Amino acid sequence: MDRDAYLERLDASTTEPTDLFEHFEQRSVAGRTHHILTAARHGVERGTVVVEETDIIVRGYPSVPRTLVLDPGIPSFFEGDETVTIEEKLDGFNVRIADVGDHLAFTRSGYVCPYTTARARDRLPLADFFADHPDRTICAELIGPETPYTIHEYDDVDSHDFRVFDVRHRETGSPLPVDDRRALCEEYGFSQPQLFGREEPSDAVAAVRDAIADLDVAGREGVVLKSGDGDAMIKYTTASQHHDELAYAFSLPFDHGRDFVFSRIVRDAFQAAELDDDDRIRERAQDLGESILTPMVSTIRDVADSETVGERHTVRGDPDSIDALFDHLHDQSMTIELKSDRLEDGERVVEFVKVAESTRDRIQYYLAGGTRQE
Amino acid sequence: MDRDAYLERLDASTTEPTDLFEHFEQRSVAGRTHHILTAARHGVERGTVVVEETDIIVRGYPSVPRTLVLDPGIPSFFEGDETVTIEEKLDGFNVRIADVGDHLAFTRSGYVCPYTTARARDRLPLADFFADHPDRTICAELIGPETPYTIHEYDDVDSHDFRVFDVRHRETGSPLPVDDRRALCEEYGFSQPQLFGREEPSDAVAAVRDAIADLDVAGREGVVLKSGDGDAMIKYTTASQHHDELAYAFSLPFDHGRDFVFSRIVRDAFQAAELDDDDRIRERAQDLGESILTPMVSTIRDVADSETVGERHTVRGDPDSIDALFDHLHDQSMTIELKSDRLEDGERVVEFVKVAESTRDRIQYYLAGGTRQE
Repeated sequence: MDRDAYLERLDASTTEPTDLFEHFEQRSVAGRTHHILTAARHGVERGTVVVEETDIIVRGYPSVPRTLVLDPGIPSFFEGDETVTIEEKLDGFNVRIADVGDHLAFTRSGYVCPYTTARARDRLPLADFFADHPDRTICAELIGPETPYTIHEYDDVDSHDFRVFDVRHRETGSPLPVDDRRALCEEYGFSQPQLFGREEPSDAVAAVRDAIADLDVAGREGVVLKSGDGDAMIKYTTASQHHDELAYAFSLPFDHGRDFVFSRIVRDAFQAAELDDDDRIRERAQDLGESILTPMVSTIRDVADSETVGERHTVRGDPDSIDALFDHLHDQSMTIELKSDRLEDGERVVEFVKVAESTRDRIQYYLAGGTRQE
Repeated sequence: MDRDAYLERLDASTTEPTDLFEHFEQRSVAGRTHHILTAARHGVERGTVVVEETDIIVRGYPSVPRTLVLDPGIPSFFEGDETVTIEEKLDGFNVRIADVGDHLAFTRSGYVCPYTTARARDRLPLADFFADHPDRTICAELIGPETPYTIHEYDDVDSHDFRVFDVRHRETGSPLPVDDRRALCEEYGFSQPQLFGREEPSDAVAAVRDAIADLDVAGREGVVLKSGDGDAMIKYTTASQHHDELAYAFSLPFDHGRDFVFSRIVRDAFQAAELDDDDRIRERAQDLGESILTPMVSTIRDVADSETVGERHTVRGDPDSIDALFDHLHDQSMTIELKSDRLEDGERVVEFVKVAESTRDRIQYYLAGGTRQE
């Protein structure tokens, strides 16, 4: 491939192709060569993909900064006269769906998930959309209790579904303005995240506080605030999300605990300092502690009882895409234990566990009296 | 200095002097040159010191492994027919006191603390002891509410005091057998940690469980178990210690939180899984959460109110050694804020704060609306 030309099309902040391309990894997908940027480098987002044969670039989704305080976090982030839209942030699996010859669903890291691809083709009118907008990327969250990645329950989603939260230019990554994007999604019948309102930055503080209070009670994740043109984005999350993530991380402490714990505590503490009275802080703290300790003790006891520990998931779809999913998970060096495998209304339904080997092995070692050298 | 000769005397697991000596740092102390090993390397403990002019080696104190479970942690660590002594582990500042020309107190890292040195000379009969045992190192914990390093309160210590928990050969680091050491300490009037008993390894489990229950209620740290010859050592700590340390760490979250949090949670979870029923687990979890969140929220609010955040300490001693202490702390790049400075019965009493600059600066940044890129 012509690296100099791609470097220019990617608008990278280096003029030396090797600086960027040494961080690309090569995969073969559906007979084409994907070059995948595995980490953000030189102004190019992680998960950016170059498809060699079709000469297509799919730009990675940018990382969304987080504010720890609503005030002055929101008014200091946005321009004073800007209109800020407040939309729900969903707890699911973030994919970009693009036409690169085929309609494929790319994970945040730039890999193609065959299962999400198959579900997207099944659930979303991709053919119609890409016929009209070939150079757009649909940015969607795969949500619901039956996905191979996340299990957060939403009232209106029995198995799994997509919510389209962004539509961007495939190559430049430039977003559609929020209102245009919402109208476009409506036109194609894409489900979207809830819109909480459009406010000036200073008024957005109270609006977000109210939205977060409601979302917290409902056990939902949080909000993303965007400038009208969709370019500036900031996120803020609920206490229940922080605690859910800690509970997940500490159910598999030696796989996720160390990475998760500090950042979630930081979020929770700043939120408490801004929003809570003393009674609520104590309640939040106790809840935080239970989120951390209870799942970990339960996992230690499971290991002691020789039960499998790991992430439990259920997936549902056509038999071929389920096979492709397990190939994909095995490619990522995951150890999978099948719990059940059945047909329901022509669909294959599989329950499985992604075995958390580090957690299992470390807990076994300590339970056998292994010592920690500190 | 003759590196080959020292390499042999240190019994290092390398034959290339540079392998070891590149990790030494040089300091001048009381007119002599100290070569200090700043990290454990090639079988030589961190904090090992070579004093050039007097040709003396002070061996570092070994790191003590920790078991996360009493059963089978204790019986699998010790030989079946060994007698295990159970002594209290104190929450203080661990120093080695040795005669290297002068009687000096070395920190765990191998630096000489002038204040601890002065207090040790004042409180312990060093002249008598080193006249009889010139080649021994006294390993002691400086405890009490008035020290420059720790503030844990003990009922019988108004200001500060020493507890001698080990006596070792200065150069080889070889310990005295526990009974001999306790007798020797008695002979010189050194206060010692409480002895909970001598047990066979399998009986030690119940004895430690009882000791830990009592120590936990009293808010004390834990126990160290040693083989009769003093060579094999293992430690185990109380829930109240884990939670106290978390409270300390999260009162200064961006200085200590990240390092402390995971290991303390791990200790607490294994202890809960082994010793607690469901009600007690919930209580422990709530207590854990309060230890983490409450101090951090309080520090965030202090920063918002422009109050100084950091570790508060009080020290008491002769004016010269207090001056030397502050020189020593400044040498370690600490920012010190004096709160009060007065004379009491001929002693100078200084209250001060070690300013936690990372915590202050990060919290200020986030409170001003600074974002986290994740």
